[in-house]
Amino acid sequence: MSSIDPVDLTAKLVRCPSVTPADGGAQEVLFDLLTEAGFDCALADRGGIKNLFARWGNKGNTRSFGFNGHTDVVPIGNEADWTMPPFGAEIKDGIMYGRGTTDMKSGVAAFTAAAIDFVRDTPPDGSIVLAITGDEEAEGIDGTRALLDYMQEAGERMDVCLVGEPTCPNKMGEMIKIGRRGSLNAHFRVIGKQGHAAYPHRANNPMPAMMRLMDQLASHQLDEGTDHFDPSTLAIVTVDTGNPATNVIPAETRATVNIRFNDKHSGASLTTWLEEQAAAIRDSFGVQVELKVKISGESFITPPGELSDLVSKAVQAETGVTPELSTSGGTSDARFMKHHCPVVEFGLVGQSMHEVDENVEVAQIHQLKSIYTRILKDYFA
Amino acid sequence: MSSIDPVDLTAKLVRCPSVTPADGGAQEVLFDLLTEAGFDCALADRGGIKNLFARWGNKGNTRSFGFNGHTDVVPIGNEADWTMPPFGAEIKDGIMYGRGTTDMKSGVAAFTAAAIDFVRDTPPDGSIVLAITGDEEAEGIDGTRALLDYMQEAGERMDVCLVGEPTCPNKMGEMIKIGRRGSLNAHFRVIGKQGHAAYPHRANNPMPAMMRLMDQLASHQLDEGTDHFDPSTLAIVTVDTGNPATNVIPAETRATVNIRFNDKHSGASLTTWLEEQAAAIRDSFGVQVELKVKISGESFITPPGELSDLVSKAVQAETGVTPELSTSGGTSDARFMKHHCPVVEFGLVGQSMHEVDENVEVAQIHQLKSIYTRILKDYFA
Repeated sequence: MSSIDPVDLTAKLVRCPSVTPADGGAQEVLFDLLTEAGFDCALADRGGIKNLFARWGNKGNTRSFGFNGHTDVVPIGNEADWTMPPFGAEIKDGIMYGRGTTDMKSGVAAFTAAAIDFVRDTPPDGSIVLAITGDEEAEGIDGTRALLDYMQEAGERMDVCLVGEPTCPNKMGEMIKIGRRGSLNAHFRVIGKQGHAAYPHRANNPMPAMMRLMDQLASHQLDEGTDHFDPSTLAIVTVDTGNPATNVIPAETRATVNIRFNDKHSGASLTTWLEEQAAAIRDSFGVQVELKVKISGESFITPPGELSDLVSKAVQAETGVTPELSTSGGTSDARFMKHHCPVVEFGLVGQSMHEVDENVEVAQIHQLKSIYTRILKDYFA
Repeated sequence: MSSIDPVDLTAKLVRCPSVTPADGGAQEVLFDLLTEAGFDCALADRGGIKNLFARWGNKGNTRSFGFNGHTDVVPIGNEADWTMPPFGAEIKDGIMYGRGTTDMKSGVAAFTAAAIDFVRDTPPDGSIVLAITGDEEAEGIDGTRALLDYMQEAGERMDVCLVGEPTCPNKMGEMIKIGRRGSLNAHFRVIGKQGHAAYPHRANNPMPAMMRLMDQLASHQLDEGTDHFDPSTLAIVTVDTGNPATNVIPAETRATVNIRFNDKHSGASLTTWLEEQAAAIRDSFGVQVELKVKISGESFITPPGELSDLVSKAVQAETGVTPELSTSGGTSDARFMKHHCPVVEFGLVGQSMHEVDENVEVAQIHQLKSIYTRILKDYFA
C-alpha cells in the first residue's frame, strides 16, 4: 500500500453530498480505507447517524493517541450563488472548491492519511484511535456523544485527543484551541399592570424596570479575562413588548440576553448572579420578574502543558509559525471529548467555512498531514 | 310646551345607535326639539358627519353662553358581554343602562333640556348656543372643528363655553376640568451593526444604547407640577427588536414613548429635549439614533376666574360638594373650543364610560340639568 494522498482523499469525501444528517457515502470511504490499512473499524451509528470508530494497535496498549472529526457539512444555501460545483472538489490555481473542503473533510483526510502512513512506516508502541462522526453540524446528540458512549461500552479509550477542526483565523499554523468559553441564554419577563398612558399612577409600567435591568446587565463587566480566556461577554439580543397602542401602558415585556463566559464563571454562578439582579429590580420597581436560564455549555480548558506543547512544536517545525493558544470562538465537539481526556484542536485556515464557494489551499492539506504526522512521531517517540 | 325630562331625552338618544361615525337619528331628535323650542338650528355637516348648531336669541347679542357636546359613542365591543341591551336605555333600580348613557348623551340631554326650559321660563338678555357634534370619539376632524369653521363663516360666537363631558371620577360634583395636558409620541430607532453573539467586538449592538436612553428618559422628572397641572408624565409604551436568534446581535431596535405634559412644556420644547437626549446617547455609544416626534395636542388652560367660579358655585349649590379644578385625564373637544373662547368642562360621574354595561344614575341626570340651569340663571343674572 502506497502513501495516502490527503488531497485525493479530501476530494473523494467532498464528492459525497453529506449535508447533515445525510452521509452520502463519506463514512464508507473511510471505513474501507482504514480497514484495508489494518485498523479495527466499528460502526457507532445511532438515531440514523453514521459514526465510525477505528483503532490501530491493541485495545490494551498503554499509550493511545486519538483524533476526532466529522464528515457531515452544512447546507450549500442557494446553489446558484456558487461559481464552482458545491460537491465537485474541483481544483483551480491550487485551490480546491466545495462544501466541506475546509470544515472539515480536509482535516479528516489529513489525519486519516497521516495515521495510515505512520502505522505502516513506523508502527508505534501504542494505539491510534480515530473517532469520526456524521453529526457535528446539527444538534450533535447522536454524533461524538454516541462515539463516546460506544467507547465506554466497548472499553475503548484515548489518552489524549486532537480535534481536526479549522482553527487558524488567517494564516496556517497561527492558532491552537485549548478550550472554549461557555454559553447561556437568559430569558427575562417583567410583569407590571396594564393601564392608560394618561393615568400612569393607576398602572404599573414594566418598561422602566426592564430598561434599568438591561442597562445594569449590559454595563457590568463580568471579568477582565483569565490566564487563558478573553473577558466574558454579555449581549442583549432582543427586547420585545409588541404593544401597538401608544396610549396604553403594557402589562409585560420580554428580553433575552446571551452570555459567553470564561472559566471564572459557571452556568450556575451566572444564574445566581442573574437571579440577584432580577430580584433587586423586582424589589426596587415593585414588578414581577421571571427568569429562565438555558445553559448551552460550560467553559472548559486543557491547560497549556504536554499536549499543547506537542502540537505547538509540530506546527512550528512544519510552518515556522508559533501558534497562539486560544479559547476564542464558537462551539465544537471538543466540548464532548474533554469529558474523556485532554483535548486540543488544530486544523487549517477556517475563513471560508459555511460560506458559498468554500475552499481550501491544496498545499495546506499536505502541510496539515505533515503536522499531524510529526505530532504522532513525537508522541510515540 | 311643558318642561323637558332630561331622562326621557337621554333614553331617546341612547336608542339611536350612533356608534361613531354613524348618527343613528340622534342629531334629528335634537334638531326637531330645539327648532320647536324656538332655537335657530343649522346643519354644520362635513365629511359625512352630522353636526348641529343651535342658537336661541339674536346673533348680535352681547352675551352668548355656549354648550358643547357629542352624540356619537364608542363601539359596544362584544354584545354577549352586556347584561342589558346596549341601545335599550333600560332602567333598573334607578340606573339607566346603555352605550352613551354616561359618555355623553345624558350630558347633551341635560344641557338641551336646561336651555329649552330656561329660555321659555325666563328668556334671558342674550343668546344660548349649542354646538353638538357627531364626531368626537374618532379623529374629530369633521366634528367640533367643523362647527367652529361654520361659526366663523356664519359670524356666530360664544363668549364662554361649557363642555358637558363626564368629569367626576367617583362622586357627583367633585371635579371641574379647566384645561388638559398636552400629549406627544416619540418614536426612537437605534441602529448599530449586526454580528455573531460570540464575537461582540466585531458587531455594534444597538441594545445597550437603547436601554440607557430609555432608562434616562424614564428616570427624568419633567417637572413637579404647576399651579393648575399635575406633574408631566413620560411612559415607555413599547420596545421591540424582533430578533429570534439568540446567537445574533441585532442591527437595530425601536421604542415608543408617550409624554403627557403640562403648561411648563410645549411640543417643541420637549422635542428639543428628546433630540438632545438622543444625540448624547448617539455620541457616547457610537450608534445611529433616529427620532420622530408626533405631537397630538398642546396643553391648554382656562385659568381659574369668572367662568370656573360660575360653574363651581352652581355645582356647590346643587350638590353640596366643592369641586376641584382639575387638568387631569385624556383629551376632549375642549382642546378645539379653547381656540374660540374660555372653556371649562363639567358633567357627571364617568366611571363606566367606554365599558360594557355603561350606565348612569337617573337621579344624576336630573341633578346635572339643575346645575346647568343654575349656571344659565347666574350667567344672565
